[in-house]
Amino acid sequence: MTSELSVADQAALTSGSDFWHTTGVESAGLPVITVTDGPHGVRVQASEGDLLAGVPATCFPPAVASASTWDPELLRRMGEALGDECRAMDVAVLLGPGVNLKRSPLGGRNFEYFSEDPILTGALATEWVRGLQSKGVGASLKHFAVNNQETDRMRISADVDERTLREMYLRAFHRVVTKAQPWTVMCAYNRINGVYASQNRWLLTDVLRGEWGFEGLVVSDWGAVVDRVAAVRAGLDLAMPGPDATGDRALVEAVEAGTLDGAALRTSAERVRDLIVKAGKRETGSYDAAAHHALAREIAGRAIVLLKNDGGLLPLRAEGQTIAVLGEFARTPRYQGGGSSQITPTRLDDALTQIQASTSAAVTFAAGYDDPAEAVELARASDVALVFVGSVHETEGADRDSLDLPAEHLALIEQVAAVNPNTVVVLSNGAVLLTSGWESQVPAIVEGWLLGQAGGSAIADVLFGRVNPSGRLTETIPVKLADHPSYLDFPGEHGHVRYGEGLHVGYRGFDARETPVAYPFGFGLSYTTFSYGSVAGDGLEVRVPVTNTGSADGREVVQVYASLPGSKVRRAPRELKAFANVAIAAGETVEVVLHVDRDDLAYWDTRLGRWVVEDGDYVFEVGASSRDIRATVTRHVDGDEVRVPLTADSSVGEWFADPRGAALLGELFAAAAAGAGDSTMAAMASDPGMLMMLNSLPLSRMAMFPGSPFTGDALAGLVKAAND
Amino acid sequence: MTSELSVADQAALTSGSDFWHTTGVESAGLPVITVTDGPHGVRVQASEGDLLAGVPATCFPPAVASASTWDPELLRRMGEALGDECRAMDVAVLLGPGVNLKRSPLGGRNFEYFSEDPILTGALATEWVRGLQSKGVGASLKHFAVNNQETDRMRISADVDERTLREMYLRAFHRVVTKAQPWTVMCAYNRINGVYASQNRWLLTDVLRGEWGFEGLVVSDWGAVVDRVAAVRAGLDLAMPGPDATGDRALVEAVEAGTLDGAALRTSAERVRDLIVKAGKRETGSYDAAAHHALAREIAGRAIVLLKNDGGLLPLRAEGQTIAVLGEFARTPRYQGGGSSQITPTRLDDALTQIQASTSAAVTFAAGYDDPAEAVELARASDVALVFVGSVHETEGADRDSLDLPAEHLALIEQVAAVNPNTVVVLSNGAVLLTSGWESQVPAIVEGWLLGQAGGSAIADVLFGRVNPSGRLTETIPVKLADHPSYLDFPGEHGHVRYGEGLHVGYRGFDARETPVAYPFGFGLSYTTFSYGSVAGDGLEVRVPVTNTGSADGREVVQVYASLPGSKVRRAPRELKAFANVAIAAGETVEVVLHVDRDDLAYWDTRLGRWVVEDGDYVFEVGASSRDIRATVTRHVDGDEVRVPLTADSSVGEWFADPRGAALLGELFAAAAAGAGDSTMAAMASDPGMLMMLNSLPLSRMAMFPGSPFTGDALAGLVKAAND
Repeated sequence: MTSELSVADQAALTSGSDFWHTTGVESAGLPVITVTDGPHGVRVQASEGDLLAGVPATCFPPAVASASTWDPELLRRMGEALGDECRAMDVAVLLGPGVNLKRSPLGGRNFEYFSEDPILTGALATEWVRGLQSKGVGASLKHFAVNNQETDRMRISADVDERTLREMYLRAFHRVVTKAQPWTVMCAYNRINGVYASQNRWLLTDVLRGEWGFEGLVVSDWGAVVDRVAAVRAGLDLAMPGPDATGDRALVEAVEAGTLDGAALRTSAERVRDLIVKAGKRETGSYDAAAHHALAREIAGRAIVLLKNDGGLLPLRAEGQTIAVLGEFARTPRYQGGGSSQITPTRLDDALTQIQASTSAAVTFAAGYDDPAEAVELARASDVALVFVGSVHETEGADRDSLDLPAEHLALIEQVAAVNPNTVVVLSNGAVLLTSGWESQVPAIVEGWLLGQAGGSAIADVLFGRVNPSGRLTETIPVKLADHPSYLDFPGEHGHVRYGEGLHVGYRGFDARETPVAYPFGFGLSYTTFSYGSVAGDGLEVRVPVTNTGSADGREVVQVYASLPGSKVRRAPRELKAFANVAIAAGETVEVVLHVDRDDLAYWDTRLGRWVVEDGDYVFEVGASSRDIRATVTRHVDGDEVRVPLTADSSVGEWFADPRGAALLGELFAAAAAGAGDSTMAAMASDPGMLMMLNSLPLSRMAMFPGSPFTGDALAGLVKAAND
Repeated sequence: MTSELSVADQAALTSGSDFWHTTGVESAGLPVITVTDGPHGVRVQASEGDLLAGVPATCFPPAVASASTWDPELLRRMGEALGDECRAMDVAVLLGPGVNLKRSPLGGRNFEYFSEDPILTGALATEWVRGLQSKGVGASLKHFAVNNQETDRMRISADVDERTLREMYLRAFHRVVTKAQPWTVMCAYNRINGVYASQNRWLLTDVLRGEWGFEGLVVSDWGAVVDRVAAVRAGLDLAMPGPDATGDRALVEAVEAGTLDGAALRTSAERVRDLIVKAGKRETGSYDAAAHHALAREIAGRAIVLLKNDGGLLPLRAEGQTIAVLGEFARTPRYQGGGSSQITPTRLDDALTQIQASTSAAVTFAAGYDDPAEAVELARASDVALVFVGSVHETEGADRDSLDLPAEHLALIEQVAAVNPNTVVVLSNGAVLLTSGWESQVPAIVEGWLLGQAGGSAIADVLFGRVNPSGRLTETIPVKLADHPSYLDFPGEHGHVRYGEGLHVGYRGFDARETPVAYPFGFGLSYTTFSYGSVAGDGLEVRVPVTNTGSADGREVVQVYASLPGSKVRRAPRELKAFANVAIAAGETVEVVLHVDRDDLAYWDTRLGRWVVEDGDYVFEVGASSRDIRATVTRHVDGDEVRVPLTADSSVGEWFADPRGAALLGELFAAAAAGAGDSTMAAMASDPGMLMMLNSLPLSRMAMFPGSPFTGDALAGLVKAAND
């Protein structure tokens, strides 16, 4: 079809017509389509001047919360609901999900991301995409890639070694692309090892399409394109926003001048065309706002993480317990972060109203932050004090500089806890807050994240036990910021941020250094308890009976972590490889079956430039969190065939480690020891200690020793013999 | 002179004639000269076959010990003594000092290096070089550079960011080159960011000669040259060992073929010639072995670090205290490491004999390690038990894999301490050993490092108080290996080691993460105590009165650490900038005067590619260790003039941070806010919150907003106006 398009039309297709629309080509029957911000709601711009204000839509829980459900099925349902809203609002592509790892808890946009773990992120995002796209609406997997901070985000170079890139920062993208084929992938603003994502051919073409088989379109983050020609050359199909007449012209000129292959531009234009055509097939419709609100409430309730509940203070009773609700957030919910994901909700539940509706006993309220005196009095006079505190501001565009609660929130906790031993802290925050300064002062902590428009109801559901909490941490809560693996290198300076912790992101780093944490990855309490039986199954299957040993129905999130003791490469002490989210009625036992994907055991081998599953006895730890391992089994996994060819620069040790190399070298050493009199070579060859010390010597460098047989043609022959 | 040399002769001059000699050119009157291993003794090879066995020479304390004196003057005297021995043994160049940082305590060659701090290393090595070269003998500053491990040392690429390289790994080299002009610098085996040190023109020519003004010759580490032509091109003058007829021929051919500039080869040959000529001027002579042994004893005594001395158990009395000496190391001293630095000593003192000679009371001995039963009995029957333990093997060519004492040494400590409360542990080790598992069991710990041939006497000197210990740690003793900043990235894999901790080497990392340590950098006890008065002085001078408040004469090592709160770049919480080693008689007060070198406050600015002293209020902490700060003063330091030019890619925030940029941009935003109706640009320009969010947007990218005035010629004009 685009063969009929002029080069100028092709160029025009590869940029937007305005902020939220592609360019239409009437002569080719291509209409404009709408793409708009997500990912936890559909944000259609309401007025010309204000880029951020949107028309009302359901504000589902942001990813920080939805991910805490550890339930891909829920994410799929959320994606479906979002698809329905897109249909209703004439949106062809929703800009989400955001699958960047939470490298640092200071990341300003962490509330839009899922986890510090790539497998968990990938599993959740895959279902979100499937749900959305099942409605004929496209996803935009973002921000590809290594966009893990807001500071200097338009220019910063994320300097990351390739193994870390592959195993950590690209892994979730890899999984979602291969399993769900999102219609689009959005390239990030930042540079990766010096090259802008928007101009990074290795990333956008070699890896994304060549290795992963991505079939869709690559769209730029808004304003991420620096050079349209370089971008198309790299594999960027659609530069947003538009119009960009200058850039369109530059493309045409480059094709005419032969500096850009016309096929590259044509291919990109065809991808835009294909997207427009595909989007045109979706049905329009309306959506049930009340049902979507109920879904938002369900997800929010499942997202809440019960961090502490000493003495079974929670759940609250629906009668007979007077309650002081303290803190403005109970009345004015903090339920989403700032920036492009900000939704104008269809309605908004506050916790105070919902708590009042949940009990027949007296509920009092004080705003508390500016002046806790009234709050303290109410707390003193009540059976239970609920203190609502959290983060004041989290937004796209700015990282945080601290993990501390605001001073006035801390003061509220301390003063209330001093007068009421039944104090429950309810947190509202888009990313990790430190608890270590105050957690010992209160018996119960409810981590409420940013829960979307139904968060107020969901909090009441959990506080009163209508929902038995089953949310789990998708990121470690450290004792202090300086303990965090990323701490020394965030957010970088002078245009570069070194990913110094390498593979040791999040819990991998805490575990590697045996650092105490406040609450570990995967952690979350319930109103019931679960016991684990013996692990069965074999190979990559793990079967474990889990019994609900308490008196309430509940959900358990069973986690499988893998490690390979004695691995030839550095590995974290444990890495999440599988999880299962299961409802278990009180007193019941469920046999939970988990499958580890063999591919997920692979490491990226930088010598070979490919994934390698190492042969060996893998340890599978089955637990309720990364630091609550209930059972351990060892499973042998047959590895991939790997032979690194021997070369003249292979070390003596490497030659001896290879069967054929060892045989060849052994003969030569024996001959040298026997034949060369009192030469240095002879002396060395007959001294095992000396040979040991020479272990790391490249064979070619043996030439420095008088009498070395490893020179010139002899060396070349040896190398040939070793590899033939 | 070499203008008369043929190209072939030039080529021959740039490689050795054998393992330890340069090539002579008879026709040009150039003799061969001898270069040989150091650095804590002169190792002249004794027999043809055995590269490592040497003729007897004084085995001075290895650098791990000599550096612990924190006394540059002592290092200078050691250098002079080594110079005398070189003269006596016809050695023209002694291969030392080794100034690589101790990046990881596992480094197999740490015993040959000074410290985890570059300023301390540089100060000590400078005096060693001055002492040696005052005798007309050349030093060889090594291993240039970033040779911080033995694992895969011939190939490994040390992947280090430039700021870390400059501020940490090159800094000691920089200091020694500029202050002492060593005759030679030895290039390292390894690669740096992918390029072999021996072929690294940036390192060997641009930095070493261009920036630092090095006037001497660059010699290769033995076998470090992979490609003679590439090496000469990079600035490598002398490839060792030889002969290397193949390489000589390759050089000639390259010059003839025009692929190597003839001037480069000629220059290198001239440097070899100059070295030979210079070396020919030294006087020959003999040395006083007894006097050198006495000096070795003095340095060793000053090197010992008293880590613990509860209840003043030490010093021992010369009479009336029966002593059990336990552990084979007391009889068979462990006094140096393995590899190229290994010396055949002129004599060897053992601690057992020296202890016996120091007391009139009974001294018993048991070897202890294999079977502690006898040792335990002797300990039970004695007033004091001295337990000699340590590392069994440290050598060039292999890194360690643990910081633990051998199990049988641990058992000896535990069983002896269980029966004798007056147990003193005396350690012999080339690098850090963990103490946290057992230190609470004993009242006293003497860190005896590897002390050279007079170590046995020196240990007795300290145990009996003839020497009041004043050695200080030049490296942190961690609580556990996993706490170490380098832990996650040592020794790397597949040919690369990432310096993930960046600037945070050693105590800088422990301090940055607020990690508890067993014994901090700079720590060491004395048999007396010192109090610090108020700090006086101004600018970069620190004056502090220090009083010996005990009853024994002693030495204090006063340390000055600097920091810059609010620095625009990441900095360690404290960095050593000056120190003074002062003898203070009991009851006396000495006003210690220290000078901070302004250059040492500079950071390496990667944007500007140069050192920058930031303007600001620097905090100088004056202390007895890095974690025993006795006084703090703040001093303003006028910074260097720095203006980073504004460009189209400078961010909105950067434009506003610059006075001229702010004025220009302010006008345009005001005009946009006033003039452009309801455009996006107008809306943004009038919303301070929105502008805040755009802070990190490069000005050129504002083009994506309709109505942006920052495009095309207008943008270019703005940039011009900002920088004119």
